[in-house]
Amino acid sequence: MTLIARVEAVLIADDPSTFVTRELDKVDLHFGGIEGDRHFGIFAKADVRQPMYPRGTEIMNRRQLSIVSVEELQGIADRLGVEEIRPEWLGANIVVSGIPGLAKLPMGIRMLLPSGAGVVCEGENEPCTGPGKQIANHYGIKELTHRFVKAALQSRGIVAYVERPGELKPGDEIEIQI
Amino acid sequence: MTLIARVEAVLIADDPSTFVTRELDKVDLHFGGIEGDRHFGIFAKADVRQPMYPRGTEIMNRRQLSIVSVEELQGIADRLGVEEIRPEWLGANIVVSGIPGLAKLPMGIRMLLPSGAGVVCEGENEPCTGPGKQIANHYGIKELTHRFVKAALQSRGIVAYVERPGELKPGDEIEIQI
Repeated sequence: MTLIARVEAVLIADDPSTFVTRELDKVDLHFGGIEGDRHFGIFAKADVRQPMYPRGTEIMNRRQLSIVSVEELQGIADRLGVEEIRPEWLGANIVVSGIPGLAKLPMGIRMLLPSGAGVVCEGENEPCTGPGKQIANHYGIKELTHRFVKAALQSRGIVAYVERPGELKPGDEIEIQI
Repeated sequence: MTLIARVEAVLIADDPSTFVTRELDKVDLHFGGIEGDRHFGIFAKADVRQPMYPRGTEIMNRRQLSIVSVEELQGIADRLGVEEIRPEWLGANIVVSGIPGLAKLPMGIRMLLPSGAGVVCEGENEPCTGPGKQIANHYGIKELTHRFVKAALQSRGIVAYVERPGELKPGDEIEIQI
């Protein structure tokens, strides 16, 4: 089965002081992800997301890219009773639309881009309080920090890594091979 | 859920003239797999297994290791009416026992070794005629070449890549996190 998603925005986290991303006209996907992004690297240090490995150990980086969907972000906003959730606040690198249940895409499946690039889904990005704080700050409602975590379960998109390099830009159609 | 598999043998394909493997006392798993093995490499060239990419393009190597199970090999032997299927003939790198349905393990799950190494399942290794020829040659029965492909469906184990390096040897227990 093949699903088609549309790329609405591409973003980079290139300010060392924050995980918050900013929009670009296009990105080049390299082995390791987006150069200059805080999650760039073929390898990464194990952290709280990989409790089975000692903290700081070098492992393959399966979390190079954060992908979110317009529909899931709106779902989180609705559950929190706010107008919108900006992808920047979640540190998203790619915003897509048109695919139901992005966060539930199975691990290992391929996403193919018009440039010939390929990206592999590494499963749901489990929500933490980091983005919640951004949302809470923006709306001036402290409780949103923790409410975000529950409201974003299975709605915070996926993480992915680059299998084959290539360009990615808004308007691209992503072919998701299930 | 955690499954436990026992490592029965470790093997390497270090003869450039063949994919057939030979047994070792132990192997060191590096980023990229087993050094000296024909499938070693963090990167690989796209081939017939990745028809979505142009042949020969550099991609991440998701097929560093071939893992088979004693039980599945015996099932193939039974269906072919032969005494045994040697893991060497399939180019297997790791032989395990004690896990039902190895070939059906989902992509993306982790397998942890006592040394601290971690390996990621990349799904079923779909059977082709290469191993069938080895089996046909050994038993002197030509038809086994093609009969192998059907008999080995969902029984030819999985491919995997190294997420964290470390040693692997017979007798090790592999913790499979589903």
